[in-house]
Amino acid sequence: MSRMKLYIGNKNYSSWSFRPWIGLRQAKIDFEEVQLWFDFPAGNPEIKALSPSGKLPLLEDGDLLIPESLAILDHVARKFPQSGLWPADPLWHSRAMAMACEMAAGFHALRGTCHMNIRRVPSKIEVADAVLSDVARIETLWARSLAESGGPFLCGDFSIADAMFAPVVNRLDVYAFDVADTTRGYMDRMKALAAWQEWETASRAETAVIAEEEV
Amino acid sequence: MSRMKLYIGNKNYSSWSFRPWIGLRQAKIDFEEVQLWFDFPAGNPEIKALSPSGKLPLLEDGDLLIPESLAILDHVARKFPQSGLWPADPLWHSRAMAMACEMAAGFHALRGTCHMNIRRVPSKIEVADAVLSDVARIETLWARSLAESGGPFLCGDFSIADAMFAPVVNRLDVYAFDVADTTRGYMDRMKALAAWQEWETASRAETAVIAEEEV
Repeated sequence: MSRMKLYIGNKNYSSWSFRPWIGLRQAKIDFEEVQLWFDFPAGNPEIKALSPSGKLPLLEDGDLLIPESLAILDHVARKFPQSGLWPADPLWHSRAMAMACEMAAGFHALRGTCHMNIRRVPSKIEVADAVLSDVARIETLWARSLAESGGPFLCGDFSIADAMFAPVVNRLDVYAFDVADTTRGYMDRMKALAAWQEWETASRAETAVIAEEEV
Repeated sequence: MSRMKLYIGNKNYSSWSFRPWIGLRQAKIDFEEVQLWFDFPAGNPEIKALSPSGKLPLLEDGDLLIPESLAILDHVARKFPQSGLWPADPLWHSRAMAMACEMAAGFHALRGTCHMNIRRVPSKIEVADAVLSDVARIETLWARSLAESGGPFLCGDFSIADAMFAPVVNRLDVYAFDVADTTRGYMDRMKALAAWQEWETASRAETAVIAEEEV
């Protein structure tokens, strides 16, 4: 069986790459990492050649090339059910999927304004009300899930729901949003994960600065 | 075991409602349908009271209330594995999920310009290049999947991938996009499904006209 390959972009900036990477790494899934640098504004021809949608990340598993962060995580979770990437309880599995879908499809105001930027020195910026509404919705969702699962992560143990929200943890942190203690506690636990630390160290070692991503 | 309830919006306009509804109906899953009318611009207070994100659809299954079309479909597919909502082959399951995720998170130009409108008399409108790019990407994705699965649906038999793209079939149809024969053939097969016909008949019987949704 050939080793799975995960194609990712710049660690400092690629929020969609961070999601499957932190999920797989934290679940101790073996994979080869292949980094294809973003090259604004013309685009990286290697990415264009590889990716039908022109986007990263991609997971190569044998003959299969899977786009979309959530699809990559779901594929690996089904292939390795013991990984715990999906909660074992079917109802929590459904709740984790619902959170992952809401994240994948929503929160456009926050995502469009506050780009993920691991290295950013935390400071507030002016944001529209729509961004604050996104943050309020996220805090409510997290608080309810943490209360009902008992924590320490959204669905109890670390799961795909947490992996999908990892870039949001960075955004709330580096744009210095005023958040509730419950939110801050969850963010601190996420940032303390071994996989988070490994990604952050690698992001800080990257030298590329993409002006469009610096807010 | 109590009967599952699917809360949906207006059949003529609610593209996100159409996705789980056509999936569940086509897979012959028993559920009670509860329609909550959209009431622009103030919003329907019943929806606000029920839905944490303020959006429909929602699936109620016992104590669980699941938002997000794809999460609803995945929940039902895992609860009833014999439904065939996910392809039985794990690799096609992954491909179906990847298509469903790309649909749930993308194609914003097409979705923002050409609202789903089941009753609309087909006619072309002026669209931006970004809309045509979305359509081109969708046609490529469908053509490749149909060729590799052998059809008649995206992953062989009808699956969640088709349910997720059902509103796009309507958009390509009623805004009269020039599409390849392969695309048109797939659209015709989707529109001939018993579940599609049932939804279309109900949409035509609805009298509410929402000006913001009429393009």
